[in-house]
Amino acid sequence: MESTTKRKIKDKKRRQKVCFLGPKATFTEMAAVKKFGHSPEYIPFNSIREVFNAVEKGASDFGVVPIENSNEGSVSSTLDMFFDSGLEICGEVSVEVNQCLLSKSVIGKIKKIYSHPQALAQCQLWITKNLPHAEVIAVGSTSAAAEKASKEKNTAAIASELAAEEYGLNIISKKIQDQPMNRTRFLVIGSLEPKSTGKDKTSTLFVVHHKPGSLFDALSVFKTHKLNMTKIESRPIKGKLWEYAFFVDFQGHKDNENVKKALIELKEHTLLLKVLGSYPEED
Amino acid sequence: MESTTKRKIKDKKRRQKVCFLGPKATFTEMAAVKKFGHSPEYIPFNSIREVFNAVEKGASDFGVVPIENSNEGSVSSTLDMFFDSGLEICGEVSVEVNQCLLSKSVIGKIKKIYSHPQALAQCQLWITKNLPHAEVIAVGSTSAAAEKASKEKNTAAIASELAAEEYGLNIISKKIQDQPMNRTRFLVIGSLEPKSTGKDKTSTLFVVHHKPGSLFDALSVFKTHKLNMTKIESRPIKGKLWEYAFFVDFQGHKDNENVKKALIELKEHTLLLKVLGSYPEED
Repeated sequence: MESTTKRKIKDKKRRQKVCFLGPKATFTEMAAVKKFGHSPEYIPFNSIREVFNAVEKGASDFGVVPIENSNEGSVSSTLDMFFDSGLEICGEVSVEVNQCLLSKSVIGKIKKIYSHPQALAQCQLWITKNLPHAEVIAVGSTSAAAEKASKEKNTAAIASELAAEEYGLNIISKKIQDQPMNRTRFLVIGSLEPKSTGKDKTSTLFVVHHKPGSLFDALSVFKTHKLNMTKIESRPIKGKLWEYAFFVDFQGHKDNENVKKALIELKEHTLLLKVLGSYPEED
Repeated sequence: MESTTKRKIKDKKRRQKVCFLGPKATFTEMAAVKKFGHSPEYIPFNSIREVFNAVEKGASDFGVVPIENSNEGSVSSTLDMFFDSGLEICGEVSVEVNQCLLSKSVIGKIKKIYSHPQALAQCQLWITKNLPHAEVIAVGSTSAAAEKASKEKNTAAIASELAAEEYGLNIISKKIQDQPMNRTRFLVIGSLEPKSTGKDKTSTLFVVHHKPGSLFDALSVFKTHKLNMTKIESRPIKGKLWEYAFFVDFQGHKDNENVKKALIELKEHTLLLKVLGSYPEED
């Protein structure tokens, strides 16, 4: 299956297919367009699992899924997909998440605000200050909110600028989130293995022995080989009680000599080690 | 404020007040009752923040909030409260999360299933196998689902056994979650500092210097003093881009000599260190 996908990607005449966690006009689509431009065919899916499945089956060349927000933390459902998936991480891309108030009405007439629960949480102070009497209603996505606001009178949505365009709404106010610095990082998944560029990152997933000090021993490998960890995250192993897997990102490419040595040593310290991919590090 | 709370707790004549993340008849209430029995006055709150606030103001002696599920991982909103709160963790308690199908109808007549999104996710296989044609509707809590099932014909809720009792529903099927091993761990928060029992756990929150190897150096303190880490979790620092705080739990009490030494050294390796509490470790 992997080799078929690789062949397809090499076939330059065919239009590239990129799928992403939908619906359309969300921040994930903005990230996909930032990475791949306007020429690919874009396919939105309803869940992170469906994005992985489509890329695994070769129905799509690449997938784009959220991995982490700078205020809210990691997206567990993306991390958990890597336990079983054989896909590679072939890139990362981040976008500024600027929430906007979108409506067809003027601000004084807005009686209801629709948005995704996380977006509503991000704009709590702004809502309290500017629309204290509006009814706040949680829906499945910021795009679903924009669609509702485009159909119902005296309503607004909190969503992206892209959604304003997509659903014919006016941007009443920009950057209304309480934390002005708000970025989401996305992963590009596929079957490609990007070559070393000199400024790369490698993502790993491992499980250490269930005894005192074993995580420390595993991490000592990065220190020994002067590899800078950029991220460590723990996730429970499903079906095991209070046992964890670790996701560690570090600077370097798996083709570098010191990374190769480190990964061999890391394997000795772990029950399971998956190298999820080496890819260019975003600035 | 703290000293007032301590005085109140010492006043044995007054009935103890314990608040928890509500509504009533959820797994959090089960955890609270497991820890404190039936004599306290129990007060449900709508959010984790409100539980912290009530205990901080002394309106409640203790609070019970979820911290981690064995399959779904940590509860970020609880972890994040510790950045600003001055409360202590004074205990932990875990309960088995057994989801049940509750209804007034027989299984063959069920057209709709209500539950909390996480409970629905946990029972996905069971629903597909046993009620493939039922409409599945997400609501705010398992208790809200039980309430709906008690009022609407031909509907069911996925909720706890306690909810069956509370809302007068029959238990149609027990333990319907896809992962049979499913526990949630809760923290007891308050202003008490439990004494050493010989089998304790200490929770810390720290931020390391923003330079390569600094997390490793901080963790080496636990190794030096032979302290067994039971948990490490990272959380983003709100308003800072890709900077993290770490939550580390380890075995031992802050009154133990080796723990005292370790905490002094850890302080030298960190920009911020908060000892969140030492408390008896649950079996």
